[in-house]
Amino acid sequence: MICVLTGGTGGAKFVDGLRQVMAAEDITLIVNTGDDLLWWGLYVSPDIDSITYVLSGMLSRERGWGVKGDTFFCLQAMGQLGEPTWFHTGDRDLAVHLLRSRLLAEGKTLSEATSVISAKLGVKAHILPMSDSRVETRVDTPIGELSFEQYFVQRWYQDPVNSVRFAGASDAEPASGVIDAILTADAVVLAPSNPVTSIGPILAVPGIREAMLKAQGKIVAVSPIVGGAPVAGPAGILMEAQGLPCSIAGVAQAYEDFLDFLIVDTRDSEAAEQLRKNGPRVQCTQTVMRTADDKAALARTVLSLVCGGLYSSEPTAGATSDLP
Amino acid sequence: MICVLTGGTGGAKFVDGLRQVMAAEDITLIVNTGDDLLWWGLYVSPDIDSITYVLSGMLSRERGWGVKGDTFFCLQAMGQLGEPTWFHTGDRDLAVHLLRSRLLAEGKTLSEATSVISAKLGVKAHILPMSDSRVETRVDTPIGELSFEQYFVQRWYQDPVNSVRFAGASDAEPASGVIDAILTADAVVLAPSNPVTSIGPILAVPGIREAMLKAQGKIVAVSPIVGGAPVAGPAGILMEAQGLPCSIAGVAQAYEDFLDFLIVDTRDSEAAEQLRKNGPRVQCTQTVMRTADDKAALARTVLSLVCGGLYSSEPTAGATSDLP
Repeated sequence: MICVLTGGTGGAKFVDGLRQVMAAEDITLIVNTGDDLLWWGLYVSPDIDSITYVLSGMLSRERGWGVKGDTFFCLQAMGQLGEPTWFHTGDRDLAVHLLRSRLLAEGKTLSEATSVISAKLGVKAHILPMSDSRVETRVDTPIGELSFEQYFVQRWYQDPVNSVRFAGASDAEPASGVIDAILTADAVVLAPSNPVTSIGPILAVPGIREAMLKAQGKIVAVSPIVGGAPVAGPAGILMEAQGLPCSIAGVAQAYEDFLDFLIVDTRDSEAAEQLRKNGPRVQCTQTVMRTADDKAALARTVLSLVCGGLYSSEPTAGATSDLP
Repeated sequence: MICVLTGGTGGAKFVDGLRQVMAAEDITLIVNTGDDLLWWGLYVSPDIDSITYVLSGMLSRERGWGVKGDTFFCLQAMGQLGEPTWFHTGDRDLAVHLLRSRLLAEGKTLSEATSVISAKLGVKAHILPMSDSRVETRVDTPIGELSFEQYFVQRWYQDPVNSVRFAGASDAEPASGVIDAILTADAVVLAPSNPVTSIGPILAVPGIREAMLKAQGKIVAVSPIVGGAPVAGPAGILMEAQGLPCSIAGVAQAYEDFLDFLIVDTRDSEAAEQLRKNGPRVQCTQTVMRTADDKAALARTVLSLVCGGLYSSEPTAGATSDLP
């Protein structure tokens, strides 16, 4: 079993590669729920949705979120009713929010609802929310504290960030299966997701960071920072707000207590050289995923590094390594 | 003020005419909520929706329900998730269900939610649910008791009907404004809706039938039965199940304790002759509404009869009457 800690954007791209090169049944995903929001009265879990959609082949690759080919007629009608429309919920996407909200209203946990929905969409991988308790990523800015989606989607991450906190995290418990998946996986992969607001909330759930320290498999992170800047989104701003440099060194620092390997882009080979002196083992490869082949190649590199190709369907070529 | 008791199908057609010939501000609608259902976890009020849509110009006249030009992508996606799809909720239509459900979840009454939604859609008429309490029309059939929408939409009203009851009615109260609207209106109109399952639930709310007896304006019903058969839907089956003949006499009987005038189709002029001997005053006119002009003409006939054209924008021609 490979265990992947992930957010929804870079993480979904990485998972899109992973599902090409290994059996989905052998993947357990522990997904950030810090971005979850009540939208039009429905419970929306953006990262779980993206991961579910990518694994079911439904994700819109153009947009990187939502259902491919989706329409937005309900959104338009909500706008005519004077309701907020900044969070773009497609008509097909709504079906998942409606079903999840109904299951939760019936007393199911988020884990159970996630499991029902992913089974109905034919997903064979195991998708686990980090917690069944509500943990909310809150971004403190000069205009006040915002939810992550307000900061990220509604306000286009234009606000300066003072700090980030995970409201509710100290009282949260990992969802059933999370700790076990980390402890027993052949490898634990931190997807190229934002270390602060995608992986950060997962590690903030009491018990998860401790499990990472005790994991029997190797732990590898794929850097979402390439050439000193995030591949996409506000990772740089948020890392700096949390006292981490926006660099592969910052990524290594975020995970320093448990990280075995860091995979960085070939563009960062000089920085990698520096990092090797006192940090984890670092491997350079192409990490920017533009095509299906890019995604598959990165997934193979990761698998080859941490499990010697145990799960990978083909050998990896072209990666440079500092491993013996 | 004209007060209209109505369901959603024939009633919406009648209201479509009424809004053409009088100021919407002067219309108060008391709407059946016995068909309301929880659908995909949302609170749907089919008759309030139809009345709201017809008054805002949004009703699909082809279908007679839902929003004109609506799409059904969410419905399709719900089907793919294995959820029921027999109640056809359009993507634009969903917006109203989402907003109403959220308002109710926030503690608003159905009256308040209805008022918010109709205001947002620019409706000037006053739409009142018959009650803010849950009253459920239950249809007893050989396969068991069904909700009205199960009987009507899911099973295409193919089941024999033993009886109809209005669960919760005895504990319900009329919504705020309902009794006052009936008592003080210049006329009370019973729309050409099913007497059993559209008007019946309204009259089953304690206090409403009593108010009809004390109304200061005249009370007029438009028969939904033409030529011994319903214009549409299961009115005939349901009337017979409740011991009423499927005829204009059955309609008169349903309302006999308070009815001043009955408007029937010219095709029923012979039956009207019989009815006049011992029932309410009966007027024959064209009641089947195919075009906008048909609707307007019927509305004018009704207004002319009960208020001497007080609200009607043009005089009515061509109606035969037994009035002096």
